Amino acid sequence: MQVRGAGAIGALAGYAMALAFLKASGRNTNEFITRARQEIESTRPTAKNLFYATDLVWQKGLSSAGEALSEACRLADEDAEHARMIGVIGEELIPDGASILTHCNAGWLAFVDWGSALSPVYHASMKGKRIFVFVDETRPRGQGARLTAWELQQAGIPFTIIPDNAAAWLMARGKTDLVITGADRIAANGDVANKIGTLEKAIAAREYGIPFYVAAPSSTFDAEALSGEDIPIENRSEEEVLYQEGPDETGTLRRIRVAAPGATAFNPSFDVTPAKFIRGIITENGIIHP
Amino acid sequence: MQVRGAGAIGALAGYAMALAFLKASGRNTNEFITRARQEIESTRPTAKNLFYATDLVWQKGLSSAGEALSEACRLADEDAEHARMIGVIGEELIPDGASILTHCNAGWLAFVDWGSALSPVYHASMKGKRIFVFVDETRPRGQGARLTAWELQQAGIPFTIIPDNAAAWLMARGKTDLVITGADRIAANGDVANKIGTLEKAIAAREYGIPFYVAAPSSTFDAEALSGEDIPIENRSEEEVLYQEGPDETGTLRRIRVAAPGATAFNPSFDVTPAKFIRGIITENGIIHP
Repeated sequence: MQVRGAGAIGALAGYAMALAFLKASGRNTNEFITRARQEIESTRPTAKNLFYATDLVWQKGLSSAGEALSEACRLADEDAEHARMIGVIGEELIPDGASILTHCNAGWLAFVDWGSALSPVYHASMKGKRIFVFVDETRPRGQGARLTAWELQQAGIPFTIIPDNAAAWLMARGKTDLVITGADRIAANGDVANKIGTLEKAIAAREYGIPFYVAAPSSTFDAEALSGEDIPIENRSEEEVLYQEGPDETGTLRRIRVAAPGATAFNPSFDVTPAKFIRGIITENGIIHP
Repeated sequence: MQVRGAGAIGALAGYAMALAFLKASGRNTNEFITRARQEIESTRPTAKNLFYATDLVWQKGLSSAGEALSEACRLADEDAEHARMIGVIGEELIPDGASILTHCNAGWLAFVDWGSALSPVYHASMKGKRIFVFVDETRPRGQGARLTAWELQQAGIPFTIIPDNAAAWLMARGKTDLVITGADRIAANGDVANKIGTLEKAIAAREYGIPFYVAAPSSTFDAEALSGEDIPIENRSEEEVLYQEGPDETGTLRRIRVAAPGATAFNPSFDVTPAKFIRGIITENGIIHP
C-alpha cells in the first residue's frame, strides 16, 4: 500500500493512467495502456474512485496523451471541489456543541483536499460551532490514531482517540451525537463499503438512535453494483494485525509483534454497511437518504 | 495492573487478605486489616470476584488468621471447580463444527484453572467436537491476540485472531455460530460488565441472530447492583491506547507510539451489556436466561 484514501487513490490513478499514455508513444500503445490499466486497477480493488478515474482518463487518452493528462488534472481539481462542497452541505447536519464519532481517516490526507467525512467537521468548526471529535483508533492500520488525530490537531479541533471497542459504550452513555464516516464504494441501493469496523459502528448507532452519515463524492458511487454483495472486498496481509510499527522513545522506528508467537490472523480491510443503517449520504450534490 | 482475569483477581485477593491477617498479629489488627482491605479493593474496582473473596476471607479472619488462609485456599479451589463445571455445562451449547467468537481472555490464564468463556470451548474440544475460534484482538491491551491465542495454541484448538473491528462483518457473512465471553460483574437484572467491546459484539450478534453467551461463576454476580447502572467502571491510562509493547525482530521488548504525537486518548476498560442482548449466562449451577 503506497497510496490510501478514496479521493487520493482516485486522483493518483488518473495521473498514473495519463503517465501510461505519455510513456506509450512509439510502442504498441493499446497493449501497453491496457496492461497499465490492469496493473493500476489491481492495486486497491475496493476503491471505486480508482476505477472512476482510470475510466475517464482512458476515454480522453484515446484522442491524445495530452488530453489524458489534462483530464487527470481536472479529476484532481474536481476531487478537491467536491470534497469542499461535501463540507458546505454536511456541516448543516452538525449542531453547535455536538460530539462526533468518526472511523478511519477520511480527511484531506485521504483526498486532494478537505476530505469527505472530515470536511463537514472542518466547515462546522470554521463557522464557529463548538464541536468535539471521538476518533476511532481504527485497527489494524490505525488511520484514526495516526492520521485523523494529526489532521484535527493541525486544525485546532478538540478530539480524543478511543479504542475501536469503545464506540458503542460511548453511544450507550449518550456521549455521541452523530457519526460520520467516508466510503470506498457505494452500491446503487445505498449499501456502503468502507473501512472494516464501519458496520459495527453503524449497527450500534442505530441501536442508540444516533444518526449515522456517510460522506462521499459521487465518484464513489458504483451504478453497476446493485447491492453490497457486488462490491469486491480487499483482504490484506495478516502481518498488519500481528505486528505494529511506530517510533520508540528515541524516535527510532520499530516493528514489534503484538500477538502470541505462531498465531495467525484474518484481516478483511473493508466491510459493507447495509443502507438501512445509514441516515444519509452526504455528496457534493446534496444529501441522499438511502 | 499486576493481576488480571476475574477468577485470578478473586483468588489473589483472597490470599492477599489472608496475608494481611497473618501480618497483622501484634499490631492494631482491626485498623491494619481495614486498610489492607481498602487497598486490595481499590486495585480493580469493576471485578466482582475480588469483593466476593475479600468479604469471605474477612469474615473467617475475624476468628483467626489461620482460618483466613484456609478460606483463601478454599476459594481458589472453588474457582477452579466452578470453572470446570461451566465447561461441562456450557459445552452442550456448542454444536459440532461450530465457529465461536470470543472477546478478551477468559481462559485458564484468567482463572485458577479452565477459565469461564474458554472452559466450554476446551470441553467441547475434549469431547471430540470440531470447532474453530475467532479471537478478537481486544484492544487496547490485546488480551485476545496475546493470551487467548496462546492458550488455544497450547490446547491445539484451531483459531485465528481478528481485529476487533471485523467481528460484525464475520457475523454478517455467516462465519460465526455463537459468541462466548466472560464477565467482570453481573447485576441482579442480568446486565453484564465485561471488557470494553463486549457491548459492540453483543449488539451485532443480536442483529444477526447469533446467540451471545456469557460464562461466569456465581461469584461474579453482584446482588447489590440492581442493574448495570450500579456497576463501577474502571477507566485506565491513555498510555495503553497510545503506546504498544512487544518484541522486535531480535526479541527485544520495545515500547512504540501508535498514535499521532501529542494526541490524547480515552480508555474505558469495561462496558455494560444489557441483559436483553444476552441469550444465556453459563454458571457452575446451570444456564440462566436473563
